[in-house]
Amino acid sequence: MENPAYSFQDNRATSAREIPHKSHLILIGGGSCSGKTTIALAIGRRLTGLKTVIIAQDSYYKDLSYLPWQERTKVNFDHPDAIDIDFLLSDLKKMMAGEPVNVPAYDFVTHTRKEGNLCVANAEVIILEGIFALYYPKLLQMSDLKIYLDSDADIRLARRLQRDILERGRSVESVLNQYLETVKPSHQAFIEPTKKNADIIIPGEKEFDKVLIMLNGYLQHELLSN
Amino acid sequence: MENPAYSFQDNRATSAREIPHKSHLILIGGGSCSGKTTIALAIGRRLTGLKTVIIAQDSYYKDLSYLPWQERTKVNFDHPDAIDIDFLLSDLKKMMAGEPVNVPAYDFVTHTRKEGNLCVANAEVIILEGIFALYYPKLLQMSDLKIYLDSDADIRLARRLQRDILERGRSVESVLNQYLETVKPSHQAFIEPTKKNADIIIPGEKEFDKVLIMLNGYLQHELLSN
Repeated sequence: MENPAYSFQDNRATSAREIPHKSHLILIGGGSCSGKTTIALAIGRRLTGLKTVIIAQDSYYKDLSYLPWQERTKVNFDHPDAIDIDFLLSDLKKMMAGEPVNVPAYDFVTHTRKEGNLCVANAEVIILEGIFALYYPKLLQMSDLKIYLDSDADIRLARRLQRDILERGRSVESVLNQYLETVKPSHQAFIEPTKKNADIIIPGEKEFDKVLIMLNGYLQHELLSN
Repeated sequence: MENPAYSFQDNRATSAREIPHKSHLILIGGGSCSGKTTIALAIGRRLTGLKTVIIAQDSYYKDLSYLPWQERTKVNFDHPDAIDIDFLLSDLKKMMAGEPVNVPAYDFVTHTRKEGNLCVANAEVIILEGIFALYYPKLLQMSDLKIYLDSDADIRLARRLQRDILERGRSVESVLNQYLETVKPSHQAFIEPTKKNADIIIPGEKEFDKVLIMLNGYLQHELLSN
């Protein structure tokens, strides 16, 4: 379960070109703490002249308010069934049609959906990042580019420990228990295999410079020429 | 041990632009039968306006003429020490300086070096492909872009069987023996780890369309602007 990271950018030049509205969807998948948000932000920053929004798939976990509290805590959030994929697909379709969408926020304490403060309208590029971003066939079909971040498991665990202990105040024991019980098995069963769905795999532990130039050139060319 | 595959292309337009001579080196690594030659040819075909040459690292196996015949057959050709890396580096340096180079041919029956019929001069893009293309530090340092072809081991074995049995008339037993005794151990020890050295990893079992557009845009932009 990752922290939702939103970003909204309008890099449109003041002398805006006339671009017919057509949204493009980029999916960024990969394991927990593999660097998905980092590369999503880096791609967004470079897409000058294109209205770009980054959506965290974590915002679309299922609303468990219908379940008693005890039941909610038993749900495995490291399983693709925990994502409300129908809701996500519906929102993405609206976004891609240029309709305004309020991206929900997810309350990881109560496991319920809240109203978010990110409103997306007329985005030209939608970047969806999440551990299961390359998992669902319908999502893959809608997308224009599929990227997988490939980072070593030990590096990802180290980053996760750092994040959850230092930034979120959790205990080493609880982080390791979750990692061994659900995060790692889920990675092997549901995330690692989605590497096969990628158009391009990015090594997650080095500088992204060259791949960013490549992606930017591709996106500028493909998006502006369509 | 792969079959050397040469290709030489001059896609220069008749109204040639004035490009100051500076060669760029692209390395394409990955396991046996991972699709290195296919993508090298596809990249070369798209680099219109740039004089591109594809060099097979297999052309630079060590000349074993100094060894008695019995000794030659004991050499492990699936080991990076089997490549004459000093000779390869020396030839590449000359190519990158614009000097004419006769790429050697390798006789896999006698394990000796022969004069080749590929003469490289003034190449603007040099694509070196081979199982150990991302292995040697000095080679990595000289390069402008490092690509790794990531194909499943079973797919690679199937392709290798097809190539060696159908095209080269070898027996199933001999191909499998070599695969299990040297090809697979070498892959795990020396080739798979070089994935870490890549700027970009390409899934080897699907269409290359998007990644080719990306690479071409990058190379045209980077090479023509330098």
